[in-house]
Amino acid sequence: MTSSPPQRAPARIELTEVGLRDGLQNEARVLSTEHKLELLHGLHRAGLRRFELTSFVSPRAVPALADAAELVAAAKGLADARFSALVPNLRGAERALEVGIDRVVLFVSASETHNARNVNRSIDASLAGFADIVERLSGSGIEVQGAIATAFGCPFEGDLPAGRIGELARRLGELGIDDLTLGDTTGMATPAVVSRVVGEIAEQAPAARPILHFHNTRGLALANVMQGLSLGVTRYESAVGGLGGCPFAPGASGNLATEELIYLLEELGYDTGVSLESLIEVAGLAARRLERAPGSQLARAGTRLRLHRPDAVPTAKG
Amino acid sequence: MTSSPPQRAPARIELTEVGLRDGLQNEARVLSTEHKLELLHGLHRAGLRRFELTSFVSPRAVPALADAAELVAAAKGLADARFSALVPNLRGAERALEVGIDRVVLFVSASETHNARNVNRSIDASLAGFADIVERLSGSGIEVQGAIATAFGCPFEGDLPAGRIGELARRLGELGIDDLTLGDTTGMATPAVVSRVVGEIAEQAPAARPILHFHNTRGLALANVMQGLSLGVTRYESAVGGLGGCPFAPGASGNLATEELIYLLEELGYDTGVSLESLIEVAGLAARRLERAPGSQLARAGTRLRLHRPDAVPTAKG
Repeated sequence: MTSSPPQRAPARIELTEVGLRDGLQNEARVLSTEHKLELLHGLHRAGLRRFELTSFVSPRAVPALADAAELVAAAKGLADARFSALVPNLRGAERALEVGIDRVVLFVSASETHNARNVNRSIDASLAGFADIVERLSGSGIEVQGAIATAFGCPFEGDLPAGRIGELARRLGELGIDDLTLGDTTGMATPAVVSRVVGEIAEQAPAARPILHFHNTRGLALANVMQGLSLGVTRYESAVGGLGGCPFAPGASGNLATEELIYLLEELGYDTGVSLESLIEVAGLAARRLERAPGSQLARAGTRLRLHRPDAVPTAKG
Repeated sequence: MTSSPPQRAPARIELTEVGLRDGLQNEARVLSTEHKLELLHGLHRAGLRRFELTSFVSPRAVPALADAAELVAAAKGLADARFSALVPNLRGAERALEVGIDRVVLFVSASETHNARNVNRSIDASLAGFADIVERLSGSGIEVQGAIATAFGCPFEGDLPAGRIGELARRLGELGIDDLTLGDTTGMATPAVVSRVVGEIAEQAPAARPILHFHNTRGLALANVMQGLSLGVTRYESAVGGLGGCPFAPGASGNLATEELIYLLEELGYDTGVSLESLIEVAGLAARRLERAPGSQLARAGTRLRLHRPDAVPTAKG
């Protein structure tokens, strides 16, 4: 046996793989479209079905994602797969509409300083832009998701004032945006902060469907997932191999690794439909393509029941 | 604010720092006694008080701990500090008695194969040896703790048969050994396995006081702590800087890092009495002495509220 049976059938977890976008955007090396598709197909074979694929941003701003339209066009047709992409403005939304994405993600920071640094405008101006995009996409069949960066703390401002996230979620709800990623942009989430943020949203924007997106910058990503699950949150984003990084902590890791998330969920009794072995292989492939070590403990160590011959390895005392 | 206030005052957590023993024993470099004392004093200044300091094993078997007697003698007198050491046999116990340790730790594996590889005898023979040691130390004032290696799975045998751990805990209890480390020797613990193992012990050895000792080999150490806390376990062991490693997973990390454990506990509302900043400094010192990068995310990234100037750093999108 690998785990005790759960007390009752747990809720279905909705997983979105963000490695190709949030992961590759923050890696030193730029992958070719061909290599991105190789990873995508590997992830799909492993059982993943929802992918945040790219961003329709300026190729000058994010060279790693300059092939957005080409990548989406080449990815389409993968069985049962759903693709989303970030769009920063109306022009990006129109590019996404043209190429036929399933969902666009509109991003704003919870902190004014971070939003200014990230998109050079105020939070109010970001939300006004969202209204235009929502109107433009109305009737197109494209879903609209929001993403709040620095939702668990800002590297410039520190902890957010109480009520800030709840208010932002409420305002996004007024625009018709209920699917809402809470991004732990620089790895400041802790279980206590997760409880506070999720609680604020439940109170001020009860129609919102929170999606938790943790970075493992300070090692707490899976502890935060445990907290999210205990609060009833069933939507998570992660990146195979822990792709990505944090510009404020050059030696630290990036996104929560999808393989570690799947490992935890399966051990907690959730049936994710994803093959952990296959996922670890894709993490290894991504690391080779990026010419670095895999960014997750699990990808380096292998699955727990990969057994060893007693005469072939050193032993560990204690 | 750094976290929500807890709903009620949480239980007091008993922390034992094992970096000087379980950490250094599995590092490639051997530290001098002087450098070990430097780390010990730093850990004590940070607020830690319980230390597993060394092992009274053969210097040939574990050269890194060859200075056991000298280290204990030099460590004694540190205010309020309590020192334990592993002893493999009666001779080791007598050496520990002579130098005046506060507590000895007797270790046995839950798996026959691992016990044979580790100490070259059967589990029965190990327990018979414990009986002799307990008798020898009776009346000495030295406390006796048990440590069950491979308590959450064995790298040779896989998952343990149901009831194995509970039976071992019961037999140790019959010897008068109730303080019981459950060692995740090669990082096979998951929340489900933690529940099963702790449950077995509560059922078959209700007087036992379990001490959870996780390795972060596959990234789940803090998720396992969350599970332990939810089960009411209040005793944990960890190693500053995530010192140590796993002979079965050369690229993976070692022990749960004390700084990440303290970070999680403080954020959950526990008052550990330990300075996180000071602990991160000691983790950095240990890494420099061992000439490698710190083995914890937190030590690499720094505390969450170390803020940045908006004009001085790159930004992170999404």
